Amino acid sequence: MNAEIIAVGTELLLGDIVNSNAQYLSRELAGLGIGVYYQTCVGDNADRLLAAYEIAFDRADIVITTGGLGPTEDDMTKEIAERYFGKNLVMHEETLDKIMNMFSSQGQTMVESNKKQALIIEGSQVLPNNNGTAPGILVEQDGKIMIMLPGPPNELIPMFENEVAPELAKRSGQTFVSIVLRLCGIGESAAEARIKDLIDAQTNPTIAPYAKTFEVHFRLTASGATREEALALIEPLKVELYNRFGQDIYAEGSQTLDATICKLLADKGLTLATAESCTGGLLASRIVDNPGSSAVFIDGTITYSNEAKIARLGVKPETLEKFGAVSSETAIEMAEGAVRTSGADVGLSVTGIAGPSGGTDEKPVGRVYIGVCICGKSSAIELNLKGDRAKIRARAAAIALDFLRRELL
Amino acid sequence: MNAEIIAVGTELLLGDIVNSNAQYLSRELAGLGIGVYYQTCVGDNADRLLAAYEIAFDRADIVITTGGLGPTEDDMTKEIAERYFGKNLVMHEETLDKIMNMFSSQGQTMVESNKKQALIIEGSQVLPNNNGTAPGILVEQDGKIMIMLPGPPNELIPMFENEVAPELAKRSGQTFVSIVLRLCGIGESAAEARIKDLIDAQTNPTIAPYAKTFEVHFRLTASGATREEALALIEPLKVELYNRFGQDIYAEGSQTLDATICKLLADKGLTLATAESCTGGLLASRIVDNPGSSAVFIDGTITYSNEAKIARLGVKPETLEKFGAVSSETAIEMAEGAVRTSGADVGLSVTGIAGPSGGTDEKPVGRVYIGVCICGKSSAIELNLKGDRAKIRARAAAIALDFLRRELL
Repeated sequence: MNAEIIAVGTELLLGDIVNSNAQYLSRELAGLGIGVYYQTCVGDNADRLLAAYEIAFDRADIVITTGGLGPTEDDMTKEIAERYFGKNLVMHEETLDKIMNMFSSQGQTMVESNKKQALIIEGSQVLPNNNGTAPGILVEQDGKIMIMLPGPPNELIPMFENEVAPELAKRSGQTFVSIVLRLCGIGESAAEARIKDLIDAQTNPTIAPYAKTFEVHFRLTASGATREEALALIEPLKVELYNRFGQDIYAEGSQTLDATICKLLADKGLTLATAESCTGGLLASRIVDNPGSSAVFIDGTITYSNEAKIARLGVKPETLEKFGAVSSETAIEMAEGAVRTSGADVGLSVTGIAGPSGGTDEKPVGRVYIGVCICGKSSAIELNLKGDRAKIRARAAAIALDFLRRELL
Repeated sequence: MNAEIIAVGTELLLGDIVNSNAQYLSRELAGLGIGVYYQTCVGDNADRLLAAYEIAFDRADIVITTGGLGPTEDDMTKEIAERYFGKNLVMHEETLDKIMNMFSSQGQTMVESNKKQALIIEGSQVLPNNNGTAPGILVEQDGKIMIMLPGPPNELIPMFENEVAPELAKRSGQTFVSIVLRLCGIGESAAEARIKDLIDAQTNPTIAPYAKTFEVHFRLTASGATREEALALIEPLKVELYNRFGQDIYAEGSQTLDATICKLLADKGLTLATAESCTGGLLASRIVDNPGSSAVFIDGTITYSNEAKIARLGVKPETLEKFGAVSSETAIEMAEGAVRTSGADVGLSVTGIAGPSGGTDEKPVGRVYIGVCICGKSSAIELNLKGDRAKIRARAAAIALDFLRRELL
C-alpha cells in the first residue's frame, strides 16, 4: 500500500505556514509500513483541488488530505470529494449534536455555517474529533481509501493516532508498535555509525535514527499480530542498544532531558540552583519548562557582569583577575556560590563566550566552561563550540544539563 | 505568471525533515507577484520525478525544484531534466574549477563523483552557489522556465535572493520592493480589522498581515520600474499605518523586540536587571540573545521560591504574606529589588502562575504580574493569559518586554 498526502490551504501556498502535517503523516505512515510517494499542496480552489484528487488517486492507494474541513466557503475538501466520488453529503446528526453542545458549553451561539462541519460523505466512516469541531472522514471506494483530516496539528495528530493508525493497521492485519530511545552527548553520525550493522540487517523490528536539537533519537518499530507480539520483537533490539550506548540513553518515550533531570533530582531528594553567564537564563528556563520543577528548583542567577558574579555568588575578585570570567575556576566558584547563597544541594553553572565578539586567541568564541557542585563535590568541563551566538548558547545549556545528569547518576 | 515548487528528496517523504524550502519560496514568489498553485514533493526515483515534471509543466509557467543536485547517484534532478527537455548535460568548466579550488583550500581531495555537480543542461544559465558546491541552473524552453536550486536552505536562500529574484524581476520588467513593519501588543484579528479597508482597496502597493509569535508583521510590497519608484509608492501607506498604529509598531525590517529594547536602553544610557519567577529565565534569555546586550544588561535573578525572593531581592516577607508571591505588590518589590541589589537603572520583573497546577479561584492559572522600575519610578500590570504552561511563560516574557518598551518611550 502506498499513500499520497494532499495538504489543502492557500495559506500554505502563500508561505504563511510550513507544511508540518506532511512531515508528521509521512513519518507515521512510514512507521506503519506504508510508503509515501508524493506530497502535494494545493490552495482553496475547486478546479485545482479536483485535479489534485484525480492525479493522486491515479498513483496512490490511500489519499490523505489535511485541512479544508472548516465552516467557511473556502473550506471545500469534502465538497470536492463529493464531486470526485459522485456521492452526496449528508448531515451526521451525532456530530451536529456534538458541535452544538461544544458551542453552548462555551456560552457561544453556533452560527449556521458551522453546521457545514457536520456534513459527511454518504456511506463514509466518521473519525471523531475530540479537540475541535470538524470530524475526520474515511471513504472507501473501488479498493482506494480517502482519509480527510482537519488542518490544525493539535486536532490532526490525536485523530491520526487514535482513529487512523488503528484503521490502517486493521486493513494490513498487523499491529505496528514503536518505541523511542532518547540519547544525548553523542553526535548523529557517530550514533549512526555504531548501529550501521543493525540498520543493514533490519527487517522486523526496524530501527531509525533521528537527529534532534543536540540529541539523537532511535525509533524502534515492529509489527506483529498483537501489540504484545510486536513489543516482544522490539525487546532484544532495545537491550542491544542499551548495551551499546549505556548512559548515552537518557530516557524513553517522550520524556525530555530537562524532565529527566527534574526526576533524577526529585528521586534523590536534591534541590538545584543555577548560575549562568552566556546562556543568560536558557538553562534555568529549560528546568522551569517542567511543571514539577518547583519541587527541585530553588533559584537561578544570571550574573552577566563580573560585579554580579562577585555580588550575587561571592566569586572571588582574585579568581576573576587571575583566570578570567571564562575559566573552569570561575565556573566552579559560580556553582559553589549558587549552592552557598541559595541553600540548594546542587549548583550548576555556565560561563563562556557566545560571540560574535569577545573572543581572543587564547579563549576564542565558543569557549564555554560548565561547573557542577553536588553536595560539596565540584567539577568542571571545558567546551569549544561551533556556530553562531544562538547555537553556542543553546548547545551550552544542553551540554550543561547532560553534564549534570551524568554527574548525578 | 504562476509557479510550481517541486521538492526532491526521499528524506521529505519519510518525514525526516520538514519542507521549509517550499514555505520560503512560496512567500518570496508571492512578494514578486508570482502565484504558486501547487507544491509537490517527490522522492529520489527517476520515473516518479519525470512524472512530476510532466504534471508541473502542464499546469505552471515556472517550475522550481529544490534538492537532488548533490554528487550521489540518488541525486537526479538534473539528469531527469536532461531527459525531460531532451537536452544534454555538459561540463561547466568554471564551476568545476570552483569546486576543485573549494576542496583543495580545505585540504580535502575531490572524489570523482563531485565532478557530477559541475554538469549543467546545455544552453542553460548557471546560478553561482557561494555557500556550497552545487550551482543552481535556469533553463528556458517553449516559454516555460525551470529553475533548479540546491536543497540546503543556507545555499538556497542566498541563491534565490541574489540570482533568482533579480532574474524573475527582469522578466516581468518590474522591481518588487518589500518593507516589514513589526507590531506587538495587538492581536492578529484586531490588527487585520483595522486595515481591512486598506486590504480591500489594495493594488500597488499591497499590504499583507502575518501572525507571528505574540506579534503581527505587516509586509508592504510595491512594484515599479526602479527600486526608488517602488519605495515611493510604499511611503504613503507606511505613513498611514504609523498614524493608525503609533506605538504598536516597535520596529521595521528585521529588528526584533528584544533588540529594540537593547537599543532603547543604550540610546538612553540606561542599564537593566531582570527578576523572574514563572518565566524562569526566558525574559533574561531574550535580552541576552542580542550580541549588544552586555552593554545594557547587568544581571538577572530567577527567584522561584519565596525564600529566594527575600534573600536575592529583598522582597518583604510581609508583602509575600499579605498579598502573595503572585501580586502587583510583589512584582514591584521584585523590580525595585533588582535595581537595588544590582545597581542597574531599570528593573523588570515577572511573577505569575504558569500552571498546570497552583491556580486558585482568586488567582487562576495564567494570572501574571509584571513590574517595572525605571530610575526610581515603579508600576505594574496584571495579565490573565490563556494556554498551556509553555505558552503562558512565553507570552508573559513577550508582554513584559513590550511593557518595558512602552514605559521607556
